[in-house]
Amino acid sequence: MKILKILAIALLALIAVSTAANATTTFLASDDFVGMSFWLISMGMLAATAFFFMEQANVSVQWRKSVNVAGLVTGIAFVHYMYIRGIWVETGDTPIIYRYIDWLITIPLQLIEFYLILAAVRKVESSMFWRILLGSLIMLVGGYLGQAGFINATLGFIISITGWIYILYEIFSGEAGKAAAKSGNKSLVMTFSALRMIVTIGWAIYPLGYIFGYLTDGIDANSLNVIYNLADFVNKIAFGVIVWSCAVANSSRR
Amino acid sequence: MKILKILAIALLALIAVSTAANATTTFLASDDFVGMSFWLISMGMLAATAFFFMEQANVSVQWRKSVNVAGLVTGIAFVHYMYIRGIWVETGDTPIIYRYIDWLITIPLQLIEFYLILAAVRKVESSMFWRILLGSLIMLVGGYLGQAGFINATLGFIISITGWIYILYEIFSGEAGKAAAKSGNKSLVMTFSALRMIVTIGWAIYPLGYIFGYLTDGIDANSLNVIYNLADFVNKIAFGVIVWSCAVANSSRR
Amino acid sequence: MKILKILAIALLALIAVSTAANATTTFLASDDFVGMSFWLISMGMLAATAFFFMEQANVSVQWRKSVNVAGLVTGIAFVHYMYIRGIWVETGDTPIIYRYIDWLITIPLQLIEFYLILAAVRKVESSMFWRILLGSLIMLVGGYLGQAGFINATLGFIISITGWIYILYEIFSGEAGKAAAKSGNKSLVMTFSALRMIVTIGWAIYPLGYIFGYLTDGIDANSLNVIYNLADFVNKIAFGVIVWSCAVANSSRR
Amino acid sequence: MKILKILAIALLALIAVSTAANATTTFLASDDFVGMSFWLISMGMLAATAFFFMEQANVSVQWRKSVNVAGLVTGIAFVHYMYIRGIWVETGDTPIIYRYIDWLITIPLQLIEFYLILAAVRKVESSMFWRILLGSLIMLVGGYLGQAGFINATLGFIISITGWIYILYEIFSGEAGKAAAKSGNKSLVMTFSALRMIVTIGWAIYPLGYIFGYLTDGIDANSLNVIYNLADFVNKIAFGVIVWSCAVANSSRR
Amino acid sequence: MKILKILAIALLALIAVSTAANATTTFLASDDFVGMSFWLISMGMLAATAFFFMEQANVSVQWRKSVNVAGLVTGIAFVHYMYIRGIWVETGDTPIIYRYIDWLITIPLQLIEFYLILAAVRKVESSMFWRILLGSLIMLVGGYLGQAGFINATLGFIISITGWIYILYEIFSGEAGKAAAKSGNKSLVMTFSALRMIVTIGWAIYPLGYIFGYLTDGIDANSLNVIYNLADFVNKIAFGVIVWSCAVANSSRR
Repeated sequence: MKILKILAIALLALIAVSTAANATTTFLASDDFVGMSFWLISMGMLAATAFFFMEQANVSVQWRKSVNVAGLVTGIAFVHYMYIRGIWVETGDTPIIYRYIDWLITIPLQLIEFYLILAAVRKVESSMFWRILLGSLIMLVGGYLGQAGFINATLGFIISITGWIYILYEIFSGEAGKAAAKSGNKSLVMTFSALRMIVTIGWAIYPLGYIFGYLTDGIDANSLNVIYNLADFVNKIAFGVIVWSCAVANSSRR
Repeated sequence: MKILKILAIALLALIAVSTAANATTTFLASDDFVGMSFWLISMGMLAATAFFFMEQANVSVQWRKSVNVAGLVTGIAFVHYMYIRGIWVETGDTPIIYRYIDWLITIPLQLIEFYLILAAVRKVESSMFWRILLGSLIMLVGGYLGQAGFINATLGFIISITGWIYILYEIFSGEAGKAAAKSGNKSLVMTFSALRMIVTIGWAIYPLGYIFGYLTDGIDANSLNVIYNLADFVNKIAFGVIVWSCAVANSSRR
Repeated sequence: MKILKILAIALLALIAVSTAANATTTFLASDDFVGMSFWLISMGMLAATAFFFMEQANVSVQWRKSVNVAGLVTGIAFVHYMYIRGIWVETGDTPIIYRYIDWLITIPLQLIEFYLILAAVRKVESSMFWRILLGSLIMLVGGYLGQAGFINATLGFIISITGWIYILYEIFSGEAGKAAAKSGNKSLVMTFSALRMIVTIGWAIYPLGYIFGYLTDGIDANSLNVIYNLADFVNKIAFGVIVWSCAVANSSRR
Repeated sequence: MKILKILAIALLALIAVSTAANATTTFLASDDFVGMSFWLISMGMLAATAFFFMEQANVSVQWRKSVNVAGLVTGIAFVHYMYIRGIWVETGDTPIIYRYIDWLITIPLQLIEFYLILAAVRKVESSMFWRILLGSLIMLVGGYLGQAGFINATLGFIISITGWIYILYEIFSGEAGKAAAKSGNKSLVMTFSALRMIVTIGWAIYPLGYIFGYLTDGIDANSLNVIYNLADFVNKIAFGVIVWSCAVANSSRR
Repeated sequence: MKILKILAIALLALIAVSTAANATTTFLASDDFVGMSFWLISMGMLAATAFFFMEQANVSVQWRKSVNVAGLVTGIAFVHYMYIRGIWVETGDTPIIYRYIDWLITIPLQLIEFYLILAAVRKVESSMFWRILLGSLIMLVGGYLGQAGFINATLGFIISITGWIYILYEIFSGEAGKAAAKSGNKSLVMTFSALRMIVTIGWAIYPLGYIFGYLTDGIDANSLNVIYNLADFVNKIAFGVIVWSCAVANSSRR
């Protein structure tokens, strides 16, 4: 019995020690590639946010909204990446729900950018704003319901893809696309088509992640995280830098 | 006896372990809909606050107060939602007192907006300011006293409703309403009526919550929280966006 | 003996549990009126600070100092109320020393406001600045020495009251008072007399608190805290709002 | 043996309780004069930093650097006082190394102010900048090496004093002093001589502290801290206020 | 057995005590030279960041980007030094991965400065931007892969050096170098050559650190840290100050 008791007390001591050990393992190992990608993306988001918020004052007044919204997108992503990174460092896991919360705020904001940069150079009807917003919500809510298991995963995927295709239609052939083409502003047309490429190619990473990570299990969680992080680097920071360059180009012109 | 002792020590170990487990459960589960709504509303409030504070510098000087106050409303709501979210994630409970503290600061600020946006376009007497402030305090203090059990719940409800009705009277038929109608500023009239709709329809959620959550117990706490969160999204963020659009419309005109 | 040992271990478990319970009681109970008043005042101070710092850029340049100082007053008060609130929630106690530290910084700043708003509209001699500063230090140091027990409580009270009376003399009949009257600026005269009322009536709460709380024990600590919090709401936030309105009135005039 | 075991367990319980007690003693006692001086100086630094950073936008462009640097000095001091205060409240001790880290950043910045305010009104050669910087580094590194025990305490003192005397020479009789006298700017000459007085009389507190605290042990650590805190109040905040007044005086002139 | 049990319990008590002791050793010892260098560099980065962000508003609009990017560099470095410092104080270790994460963001930003300051005074082709960016990524990724052990250490070193040499070629003899020489802007030419010296001499510290710290083990980790910290002081803060001076010189000219 004595041994048992000592073991029990030793167990208690062990718990205390292992708690301390745990605290130590929250540091990144130098070959922890996934952790490093989380760290890079979060710091990049922070730097981008600071940059956009500082720079917005340096463009002409009708362009500031667009640069501010670019800053909101990276800022919100920064906050979420801090959470995701913390959970990853602590548990080695990255619940998809935090990415969905992030997307539910940042993706509508990004699509609103298409409306804002058009509205900065010519009159556009506000119904376009609502159609784009609706398309992004269908894409996101469908995906979330499917991944969280509220509805069938394949059904969720189909709903989500439908929303995305509608957005692509709107910005390529719909009113938004036509308005951009008709604006006659060379810098805007270039910006618009660069942003469109990001929404087409860069965003394709999300349905692909859905297919490989949830529908077919063809990819491990770590690779998926590195890919998502890299995609967000392009889709949020590069997206914002393009909006900002367009704002600078249209501000210095006058 | 040995077994008892080992059990007692095991209990101790269990407490330690369950503390760690508790810390783990503070992460959101991907099907935790209520938690997700808390997260979305708090991040939305943060983004809205940053946006209003950045944008206030881009409207003409007599409109900045209004946009600043919109930022204060979402900012204060952000701080409180961080507290409420933290308590909810930790305990699964959401004490109503934090919502009342939030309302006691944000609702008077929102009603002052009616006065501020009128004052930005025409001369208005300051007594209107005090009448609106008084109405909002009656509405809030009545509700708080009733829900905290200092006075009879039904009595509190009646006092609260009286304050709300008085506010509705003031902004529809009272001096504030008339002043808006007489301003001859199309954008202001539209804004004023949109804000009025929010105060009428959007705010109706609060007395309904009181009735279903406290007077009749006809709704569970979780649904109530999701409804309150959604209502606050409209009543605070959309409210602020409308004020901001009005400020932008009236700034670019000159 | 077994029972004793199990009791001892149970005691240990109880400590662990009660620590958790303690952590739970740091949430506000919905009928905790004192805690709510601490919460309201600290959030109000935060909102006021953000507002004054945002708005200072919107008044003309010689008035910005005054609005900035109003923001410093509420900002410093915010920091201290966060400390006081934390201690109160944790221990149910509110050491008076934190209030004195707050007052030692904010009250001189507020009295300097009388000098600053005069200096914004006419030339005033800087000796007035030093006389007001000296009066406020006598008032505060006397009160602190008496309440901390370094000197006799009644003596401290008398020294403190002397400082206050000197300040009242200076702003009513002294040079500051005369300078305001002679300025011929209607908005300044109104502001000056509103601020004077706050210093006369609003500040009377502090010596009354001293008498009832320390000299005669005629009031319980909780009521004293609620009264102090309410007084600070008027004496700091309303004070700042009045300074800000004066700055706005004098800025838009040109 | 039972008694021994119960005692041991009670000891364990005691440790837990005393930890809680410890946590309680981190609150300031109302007669804790040293703690109060740490609190006051840190809050004063915070307020000063906010003020200088807000106000820098309100002076003319060539003076903003000077006000910004004044804000950096109090800002860096604020951060360090938060650390020092925290350590003092927790342990009753205040390691001198934190003061030296603070001084190694803030004192060169302050001496650069002499160069900056000269450069704001007339052309000065940049070699003066480097000479002043060198003098301040000799003063600080000598003092640190002596107090940390890397070199003989008296030798460190002599090196440190030499650097200080060189600085005094430069700002009184050297080029900096002559440039100020020749500037013909009355407000600058007054400012320059006020700052000189602070560097001469106010800074004398540091070698005196070195003599009494380290060379002769003629003063206890608590009094030394109160004196250092008071000295920093004058040497950093009053220093910055003087720079700011000079900037305001030279801005409104045009 | 009693002794064993008491020992076991004493061990438990010891763990608790030593945890407290640990917490105490997180304070810097006054002769801890490495810790002091971490503290100085992090506080210096903070001050530099605040300064650049405050000052960017005071230079002409086409130079603000450059000053903002200087602030981003020191800001990102500040965040990472806080992490590195915390780990060092806690464990006496400084994982190189945090330095690489910092470099992966700050070094490309610094090299972009060469493009930005050229673009502020004359038209430059954007392909230069991409070439510099590519060179910096080769330098960093090569070094990281080698140090983390993904590839052979010597191979990593060679790849890294190749990237660095390409950058040197580009800014000395390549298009960037020629563009600067042709700009005919004296202040820009001086700035450009000062920055080039930093990239040539100051950055040489990193491959040297790689050689002595990883390839030959000829230097201890503490000295390496002090050298890296000093190098970053020059390579980031002095770099930024030079960019800022150039911006000020080119702004006041007009």
